[in-house]
Amino acid sequence: MKTSLPSRTMPRNASPLDPSDWEDLRRHLHAAADHLLDHVRDHRQGPVWQEMPQQFADELLDPITRHGAGTGRAWELLRERILPFGVGNLHPRFMGWVHGAGTAGGLLASLAEAAVNANVGGRNTGALRVERAVIDWARDLFGFPVGASGILTSGTSMATIVGLAAARNAHADWDVEEEGLGSEGARFRLYASEATHGCIHKALRLLGFGRRALRTVPTDGQGRMRLDQLDRIVREDRDQGLRPWAVVGNAGTVNRGAVDDLDGIADVAADHGLWFHVDGAFGALLRLSPRYRHRVAGIERADSLAFDFHKWLHVTYDCGCVLVRDRDAHVGAFQGRPDYLEGHEAGLAAGEPWPCDYGPELSRGFRALRVWFLLVEHGTDALAEAIDNSVDRASHLAARVDEEPALERIDPVELNVVCFRVLPEDGEDGDELNRVIVTELQRRGIAAPSTTRLGPHLFIRCCLMNHRTTRDDADATVDGVLHILRGLRR
Amino acid sequence: MKTSLPSRTMPRNASPLDPSDWEDLRRHLHAAADHLLDHVRDHRQGPVWQEMPQQFADELLDPITRHGAGTGRAWELLRERILPFGVGNLHPRFMGWVHGAGTAGGLLASLAEAAVNANVGGRNTGALRVERAVIDWARDLFGFPVGASGILTSGTSMATIVGLAAARNAHADWDVEEEGLGSEGARFRLYASEATHGCIHKALRLLGFGRRALRTVPTDGQGRMRLDQLDRIVREDRDQGLRPWAVVGNAGTVNRGAVDDLDGIADVAADHGLWFHVDGAFGALLRLSPRYRHRVAGIERADSLAFDFHKWLHVTYDCGCVLVRDRDAHVGAFQGRPDYLEGHEAGLAAGEPWPCDYGPELSRGFRALRVWFLLVEHGTDALAEAIDNSVDRASHLAARVDEEPALERIDPVELNVVCFRVLPEDGEDGDELNRVIVTELQRRGIAAPSTTRLGPHLFIRCCLMNHRTTRDDADATVDGVLHILRGLRR
Repeated sequence: MKTSLPSRTMPRNASPLDPSDWEDLRRHLHAAADHLLDHVRDHRQGPVWQEMPQQFADELLDPITRHGAGTGRAWELLRERILPFGVGNLHPRFMGWVHGAGTAGGLLASLAEAAVNANVGGRNTGALRVERAVIDWARDLFGFPVGASGILTSGTSMATIVGLAAARNAHADWDVEEEGLGSEGARFRLYASEATHGCIHKALRLLGFGRRALRTVPTDGQGRMRLDQLDRIVREDRDQGLRPWAVVGNAGTVNRGAVDDLDGIADVAADHGLWFHVDGAFGALLRLSPRYRHRVAGIERADSLAFDFHKWLHVTYDCGCVLVRDRDAHVGAFQGRPDYLEGHEAGLAAGEPWPCDYGPELSRGFRALRVWFLLVEHGTDALAEAIDNSVDRASHLAARVDEEPALERIDPVELNVVCFRVLPEDGEDGDELNRVIVTELQRRGIAAPSTTRLGPHLFIRCCLMNHRTTRDDADATVDGVLHILRGLRR
Repeated sequence: MKTSLPSRTMPRNASPLDPSDWEDLRRHLHAAADHLLDHVRDHRQGPVWQEMPQQFADELLDPITRHGAGTGRAWELLRERILPFGVGNLHPRFMGWVHGAGTAGGLLASLAEAAVNANVGGRNTGALRVERAVIDWARDLFGFPVGASGILTSGTSMATIVGLAAARNAHADWDVEEEGLGSEGARFRLYASEATHGCIHKALRLLGFGRRALRTVPTDGQGRMRLDQLDRIVREDRDQGLRPWAVVGNAGTVNRGAVDDLDGIADVAADHGLWFHVDGAFGALLRLSPRYRHRVAGIERADSLAFDFHKWLHVTYDCGCVLVRDRDAHVGAFQGRPDYLEGHEAGLAAGEPWPCDYGPELSRGFRALRVWFLLVEHGTDALAEAIDNSVDRASHLAARVDEEPALERIDPVELNVVCFRVLPEDGEDGDELNRVIVTELQRRGIAAPSTTRLGPHLFIRCCLMNHRTTRDDADATVDGVLHILRGLRR
């Protein structure tokens, strides 16, 4: 059993940062809990989004003084001057970019995360065990082998960096961790479709390869990588003395929700000895849905898989994940600890391997608790249902758009992303028209789609992801577009 | 004013993830708030650390089922099977590694962060404004110019990667973002003292330079970089056709709390055209203390500064920061957005520049709220007092160690880190003896120092950082060491 040595004298309030009155702080915490839960519950009643007034922004630092405003005043300022001006992603008519909506239970999980206040970089702690369990759960979900490794990240961008760092370590036939990339590294080439997310570019830049290491593969009419083109370009590069290194498959492209033929890419990757990385930021989680699971067939053959828990699983921001089939390559890219981090066989310095051996971070929070809590609380059926609902709402929205002669839609809608635009009339600038309509939808708080460019035109892009979104919300968004259009043309 | 289109029909419970009974969830949230606040308040009464039983670890995934256990059961499991097994850093006798202790008010801030649930990668939101305000506050604290840029990160490891990516962009006389490092990049050299943290190695590896890009500079008897040696090595490298690129100054080395002569390094950096990066993970925040501010003089001359809010400022994990003097180099290393992230002049897609232009992440949480809340709540005097107290407790601990003939201490104690060891008697293995004592201190829950290697020996390393630590806690730790030693020698 544990013993704890009593202090010889215990000052009543030894710390300048502990509350002088714990019960006063408790009252504020309960008041905040009530207000914040209402904030989540009643979000639908308010505008999707509203801009923080410039004055509020300008005055944010004013209450920071030498003497401290106290918990009550700090909460009051937060409640009145910050809370109302979020991103909008809790609202069922938020359809911009790719954002999860969070859950009410997520409040409780985050509160507990703060109380544990763990640095999950390493050490023998329950927090580390929870993260390992979450990784095991993900590994099993995606059909990765038991020996595979993984780590939680802030999101798919960081997960991609980790996955490609492991790929670099695996592919280099010299000690790249010691020697760096050098002139040989300049010959590495990575293949990804033209619909691939910008995080691939950013990862290549950070890792020292530069943008030019990316070879873009054309897509077919549905936004999927053309495998014949992939094969051709890889052969071409090899003939020119370059080093074909890795290929990225998309499980859900950001613009259209297209899913590449992952099994087909895995075959080409095997033929050419390429590392197969899957960007599954949101689409990977179709694995949870018995209805749509087949759409990401082949994902289990990836060498590395990057995806987000905070998108289609609605874990509170931020929380992504990377799985790596080859644990040695993964550890090889990151391990190497100084003396003061030496592991021990027992005690707090045990518990190897540590997360800091699987990623660039030594300081990292306990986001695993949020994933664990959500999975335990809701179970996988409800999570799959939320995903299925999104796909259903997208089909409904697409059908509604097709009824409107003023609107043009990109076909097909493969998953949960619908792109359409108002057709310009004579003399109208179509891009400007659609941009103004989206901005007005946001400013009036009606709905919050985003925009994107597909071919020559700017499109209104609706990504259906919020678990609260109904078919009526989809209809109301189209109604909003038409309402604003009529106003503009009047 | 905003308008919000009413839904034509509103299903009673449209979402499979919203609670079927909000009041039931509210009760659990309040119960958790009470329990978790007590957990923080009463931490001193329990053991510093206890290991999660293997059975609990093995059973973590068992409650994840298809149907969901519900909020109440999930909370019960969290409370009983995870919460007691933290890192120990809330406890006043936790002295391992470099960990902040968090605050009670941090619970409220994290709860609010979860309710906002913002992705602060970009977009025109209050969350982004708060982060910008926090960066402005840090910029002013450290005497950086108004044009400097910055971003919050998970910690100093990530902040270092961002800072050195900016340094790479600034120093390369070719388009390194497009072309990558190539053979010219293989000639870059970075200088850092032998006491420098392992995150520098990890950053150089990730960025493609490899470990060999680091040239180690010897330290003096107090663990500070020898400037004559720095100057000599840089000249030597230049003569050999290498490219001296950057130098790292330490504001608080991890092993001993040594602070390099930052002004002196800045002079050498200016002479040789080096980028001057400061690793101020914990020591940078001495800037807040009127008593110890002079110890980090010269920090305002850094080209990039990495530090943590979750260490000596006790912001809830995780939260670090990087400031960069040359905004163009910073943006140059990261900017470049795809079409679907196109910024607009108004609405939700306005608000440029976006944080995703200043770092590798597109998904990133709202940690800025925790910093803002703490600064408003406590004010800077109380934060400085907590820092001063740590230095005071360390002096006290050092004096107490010096009274014990069985113990040997490394001198001087510059800040808040005390390293000492039990002197082995004939036939004892000194390293093993000290390792066992530290493990036993942790296992019995008495105190939690860590270990490190200084010269040939393993030392017990006490990093005094917790704002709750008293002089009595320092005494109790030494008493604990001697108590265990007596037991071992009996």
